[in-house]
Amino acid sequence: MGKLLIVGTLAFDAIETPFGKTDKILGGAATFIGLAASHFKTDAAIVSVVGDDFPPVYLDLLKDRGIDLSGVEIVNGGKTFFWSGRYHNDLNKRDTLVTELNVLADFDPQVPEDYRDADILMLGNLHPQVQLQVIEQMEPSPRLVVLDTMNFWMEHTWDTLMEVISRCDVITINDEEARQLSGEYSLVRAATKISAMGPRFVVIKKGENGALLFENDRIFFAPALPLEEVFDPTGAGDTFAGGFAGYLAQSGNLSFDQLKNAIIHGSNLASFCVERFGTERLQEVTPGELAERLAAFRELTQFDIEIEP
Amino acid sequence: MGKLLIVGTLAFDAIETPFGKTDKILGGAATFIGLAASHFKTDAAIVSVVGDDFPPVYLDLLKDRGIDLSGVEIVNGGKTFFWSGRYHNDLNKRDTLVTELNVLADFDPQVPEDYRDADILMLGNLHPQVQLQVIEQMEPSPRLVVLDTMNFWMEHTWDTLMEVISRCDVITINDEEARQLSGEYSLVRAATKISAMGPRFVVIKKGENGALLFENDRIFFAPALPLEEVFDPTGAGDTFAGGFAGYLAQSGNLSFDQLKNAIIHGSNLASFCVERFGTERLQEVTPGELAERLAAFRELTQFDIEIEP
Repeated sequence: MGKLLIVGTLAFDAIETPFGKTDKILGGAATFIGLAASHFKTDAAIVSVVGDDFPPVYLDLLKDRGIDLSGVEIVNGGKTFFWSGRYHNDLNKRDTLVTELNVLADFDPQVPEDYRDADILMLGNLHPQVQLQVIEQMEPSPRLVVLDTMNFWMEHTWDTLMEVISRCDVITINDEEARQLSGEYSLVRAATKISAMGPRFVVIKKGENGALLFENDRIFFAPALPLEEVFDPTGAGDTFAGGFAGYLAQSGNLSFDQLKNAIIHGSNLASFCVERFGTERLQEVTPGELAERLAAFRELTQFDIEIEP
Repeated sequence: MGKLLIVGTLAFDAIETPFGKTDKILGGAATFIGLAASHFKTDAAIVSVVGDDFPPVYLDLLKDRGIDLSGVEIVNGGKTFFWSGRYHNDLNKRDTLVTELNVLADFDPQVPEDYRDADILMLGNLHPQVQLQVIEQMEPSPRLVVLDTMNFWMEHTWDTLMEVISRCDVITINDEEARQLSGEYSLVRAATKISAMGPRFVVIKKGENGALLFENDRIFFAPALPLEEVFDPTGAGDTFAGGFAGYLAQSGNLSFDQLKNAIIHGSNLASFCVERFGTERLQEVTPGELAERLAAFRELTQFDIEIEP
């Protein structure tokens, strides 16, 4: 059972999709990552910050799943990070309506003593300076540093981001971000360039079109499970990353074959995430449902073809 | 070795991509389908029409691959169908610059006596009235009728298209067309609705994002092979269909597992098609190259995951 340290936001989200609208609900990268990872046997902890407006029941929800929250700072009189967005009919497109950093603006992450030696460090999407501060508190270096980031940091904090990228082992970004980061349209070429920036493994997420894993000349592809309905994509990428990191922390084996399986587990969890608003579906998904859908992934992709020499 | 009858256009194409531009070169759905299918052991024939401006070397190119052309009418004084298009930087988007139907406008397809009992009928993208005339000449009914069509026919010849759809076993269309045909955004729901119109199998092509095969509740997904460069997507869909139908004609087995393999073979051939202009790459691809890339498809998609009950 490996130690997994998760850094990321705990947040309020308000979401509009073509199917409905929420008030402020539980959100944040660390929330989705933690919930996804909690489906694996790991010793997981979150480093984050919230205001004292953050409901204790939200924290209990994570604690009840065995996640250590001693690294979560609660700022008295502070307000929790808030994001609000509206999805188009094409759920791959969304507009951000509100971003209030609040306590996140002055976040000074403190890794709990017990988790400085975590096996896997999962850096959720956040200011690269914060990600860097966490990397620097790790002792010894984690076996695997997984980085999630986004286009905003490429546009505003390039140098710091490049420093973080040079120190991670796996980067997960979406296809547009991979193109932006590398200046290459072809995802194969993009992955090669990005890998040269540091990470041995490059994971490119394509939403409903699946995810690609690159290591040198090796490529693995996992589709997203075709669903009758995608209800709310919020948190799907974080959930994917959480399943990925959680599975690897449980397995302890970091071979390409295990990373392939981690991609499938991440895709599996993400397929549940999108079925309801926010974390709703992730909170109630059962081991039986996960196993059943893993079997569906296998059905969906496995074939037995004879290759004549 | 099954008999495969291919109906479709033989044409001139003039293509512009961000990488270059061609004069009038060999094109047409039946050309790509025939070239792709010729990589399998089948007794294949094409039913089509050209003008006497169509170079005999183009016909020889197909004959030399063992394709029977006794069903290709050559209209004296007629001009061959001509299509010209320009691709955007995003190669998934293109503008049609010229469409000259020419001899295609009065095409009255005649199935050669020897091929009326073909095992597999591959209806390339064409006026549904022509497709229907061919279906009606088959005796006995083929074991499998594969239909390729496009949005143009949905907009202009709905009733005839519905008649053809009701009489085919497999329909191959792209994702946007599946949505248009069914009125459903979700491809899972779209496939269910389209299947209710007639075809037992629904194949939805997503270009660089792969292809889905549906039969009732079963779904199979094959990715496109991630390539360093896509040079010219013209004919990729036809090539896919030709590989699909050619493999099934060779196999003679129409189980879901064999259709899965047919999807992989179609994707494999299409991955070569897009590497050069028009049919250039398809003409020279070797069995060794095909086998090597089939192995790459396996590497790309196959995993071995333990599912805990």
